Amino acid sequence: MSARPPKPPLQERWEQRMEVPLAVASLVYLAGYAVRILADSHLPKGWLDLCLAVTLAAWAVFGVDYLVRLRLSGLGALRFFRTHLLDTVVLALPLLRPVRMVNLYYRLQGRSNAPRFSLYGRVMVYAGLSASLLGFAGALTVYRYERDAPGASILTFGDSVWWTCATLATVGYGDVVPVTPMGRLVAVGMMACGLALLGAVTGSFSSWLIQVFTREDEEEGGKRPPGGSPGA
Amino acid sequence: MSARPPKPPLQERWEQRMEVPLAVASLVYLAGYAVRILADSHLPKGWLDLCLAVTLAAWAVFGVDYLVRLRLSGLGALRFFRTHLLDTVVLALPLLRPVRMVNLYYRLQGRSNAPRFSLYGRVMVYAGLSASLLGFAGALTVYRYERDAPGASILTFGDSVWWTCATLATVGYGDVVPVTPMGRLVAVGMMACGLALLGAVTGSFSSWLIQVFTREDEEEGGKRPPGGSPGA
Amino acid sequence: MSARPPKPPLQERWEQRMEVPLAVASLVYLAGYAVRILADSHLPKGWLDLCLAVTLAAWAVFGVDYLVRLRLSGLGALRFFRTHLLDTVVLALPLLRPVRMVNLYYRLQGRSNAPRFSLYGRVMVYAGLSASLLGFAGALTVYRYERDAPGASILTFGDSVWWTCATLATVGYGDVVPVTPMGRLVAVGMMACGLALLGAVTGSFSSWLIQVFTREDEEEGGKRPPGGSPGA
Amino acid sequence: MSARPPKPPLQERWEQRMEVPLAVASLVYLAGYAVRILADSHLPKGWLDLCLAVTLAAWAVFGVDYLVRLRLSGLGALRFFRTHLLDTVVLALPLLRPVRMVNLYYRLQGRSNAPRFSLYGRVMVYAGLSASLLGFAGALTVYRYERDAPGASILTFGDSVWWTCATLATVGYGDVVPVTPMGRLVAVGMMACGLALLGAVTGSFSSWLIQVFTREDEEEGGKRPPGGSPGA
Repeated sequence: MSARPPKPPLQERWEQRMEVPLAVASLVYLAGYAVRILADSHLPKGWLDLCLAVTLAAWAVFGVDYLVRLRLSGLGALRFFRTHLLDTVVLALPLLRPVRMVNLYYRLQGRSNAPRFSLYGRVMVYAGLSASLLGFAGALTVYRYERDAPGASILTFGDSVWWTCATLATVGYGDVVPVTPMGRLVAVGMMACGLALLGAVTGSFSSWLIQVFTREDEEEGGKRPPGGSPGA
Repeated sequence: MSARPPKPPLQERWEQRMEVPLAVASLVYLAGYAVRILADSHLPKGWLDLCLAVTLAAWAVFGVDYLVRLRLSGLGALRFFRTHLLDTVVLALPLLRPVRMVNLYYRLQGRSNAPRFSLYGRVMVYAGLSASLLGFAGALTVYRYERDAPGASILTFGDSVWWTCATLATVGYGDVVPVTPMGRLVAVGMMACGLALLGAVTGSFSSWLIQVFTREDEEEGGKRPPGGSPGA
Repeated sequence: MSARPPKPPLQERWEQRMEVPLAVASLVYLAGYAVRILADSHLPKGWLDLCLAVTLAAWAVFGVDYLVRLRLSGLGALRFFRTHLLDTVVLALPLLRPVRMVNLYYRLQGRSNAPRFSLYGRVMVYAGLSASLLGFAGALTVYRYERDAPGASILTFGDSVWWTCATLATVGYGDVVPVTPMGRLVAVGMMACGLALLGAVTGSFSSWLIQVFTREDEEEGGKRPPGGSPGA
Repeated sequence: MSARPPKPPLQERWEQRMEVPLAVASLVYLAGYAVRILADSHLPKGWLDLCLAVTLAAWAVFGVDYLVRLRLSGLGALRFFRTHLLDTVVLALPLLRPVRMVNLYYRLQGRSNAPRFSLYGRVMVYAGLSASLLGFAGALTVYRYERDAPGASILTFGDSVWWTCATLATVGYGDVVPVTPMGRLVAVGMMACGLALLGAVTGSFSSWLIQVFTREDEEEGGKRPPGGSPGA
């Protein structure tokens, strides 16, 4: 981490300036996508086309930002791709951008000398926010492919959200399940998210417990004469 | 932890005095809620109203306690809310109060110079008790919304408890599932509990193993000459 | 652990002498139970009664052993109960006794100066053996209560074993599920086993990874000048 | 690890020379198996026999390699079996061989002085690749036994892959499930893989978090005066 070379000043300034516009574009993207799918039969076609245009425009903001960064970094396309994997993921799934806002929030909080949030809490917030955003977008996508499929059991958006929750928690009741190939493809991605969420919850719980235990051990150790064994 | 300022003496005394009344109020709350739902069709309306009154009275005890604490703390409402999140959760879900009794039990045990219970055991007791209390209340709530719903598969309280166990263990058979929006909302909360329970079980097992391993490593290390590598 | 008082010599000798008879009794108990349930309709009633008698006799061996230990320990019944929880669990579920044989095996191996099996491997063997034994007994018990129940989906012992595996792995397909109260009660116990198994697998994997990582870190640290930061 | 005796030079050279041929044989084995099952009704019988021959030939390469290693090691058959468990597993399931290629890749990368991939990333790659290979082969095998079974719900290879994903993620919807004894046997093996995958994801997440936390702790500790408590 510490060995990472400092970014060029121009790139640094661009990233700081784009922080808020990109977060707004991300929410606009998600909203446009949601309205287009959920209001399909209620809105006239002109409005739906507007939603599509808004969604694509928001995506274009991310595309332009990616290209500017690539140019400013002074790296080749392939090397930039390899060293900025997270940015590439966000380019493909702009709805994940708000997760970066958490980072910004903690940085601001850190400057104000407030006590730092624990690593455990931060991981929980990241995992929860990512799961919520991906879950919402996944529920929308599955609903889009399933609602008109023959023999489908996911008929309303509520069904799709219910199915998403059962999948992310790896419970998987199976009362409503996707039946179309595209719906199942999204579902497999959602299961991977569920596994990662489980790993994040379990992992941070485990590391928190170990930390608490180590501290208790040290406090007890501190009461012993200093010639004893030096901590765990 | 150690940097936390000491509580004002009046607040301290109030909390000690309310320990037992709040635990009793919590059990009364749960009992009133259970009787009102389970004995719905068997009891005359007067008894059911009494149950409702008892439940609300028990809740009121928690509300009054919360206000007294807020006043005694000398903090503003918003700051008290932020620094006493756990108390606020207990205010919203009074049935979680008995979980705090575990804390009291361990404090009493600690005074009597008995060997301290391991962190692993304490986490297991907390997780088990919370899961049982939340599971029981959740099964009651789901049963209440599902029993008269058209097309429901949770028809008896036994079905509801069976479904609750399968959900908390993240097994999710799907033979009985909630179909109403309210039932599914409670179910999503229950899945979150299941994830947390899994995290608690796995995390404490993991930290216990690491502790055992570190001790074994140290014991072996103690037999080596003291000039060897310092600790694990 | 090290502070534990040494056992009286008589008790020690009794435990060593009973090691093999108790393991045999445990297997006889399980075999008797299995034959009685699986061969229900094929064997004449006399044979079934014999199986029952053998099962009860095997159980009686455990009861006598427990009483002898209680007497030899010189403790009161309640205190013995509290300090020998594992023995009490084995008294209630004699089929868990073979798990203790693993302990014996490792002790013998330790004496022969062979390299010690890793903690990770030992936990895996314990968890796998316990899950297999409890799973087999659970599948038998669920099959016994379900096979003649109206509307049951577990109709053969194969179904019961299939359902057991899906439960222990917390997968829970729900194609076959218990419908009787007793079957569901056993199922809840099995889910708890599944959670514990998951915790054991995940926990030992996690602790193994941390151990490997710490060693790699130390090896790298050893190459640095000794004035550097002292290890991880 | 460090106490492991060096391998005889002949054996070492044999293993290096067989690295690529075995990986190719492994992929040929998997391809032959896949074509034989998926193209069952489309290809003339001659082609299917060719596929079988190719699959068996690829397996034979592994068998010969195992025997040569056994001879070169100079050990008895039983002792070789016990000390080369992983090789024996690969002999039984040649499709797992590509997993070893990851090892080779990391060794090559290590020589080129590139920064080492983190342990966390390596475990993820191993777990992901093993799960993919075993999942693909398992989906093929289950499909083979289920497609013509009466009352089966797994009718297409797509269904089988979908069921495999739900099983490996321990979600288990239960909309499609194996009904034949052989299909269920493979399914139980897949559940075990799912448990291991969950353990790998959770375990590496947990160990990664602990590592990050320890580093943060050390960095903070480094700013304190050196007389303070020595690290976490």
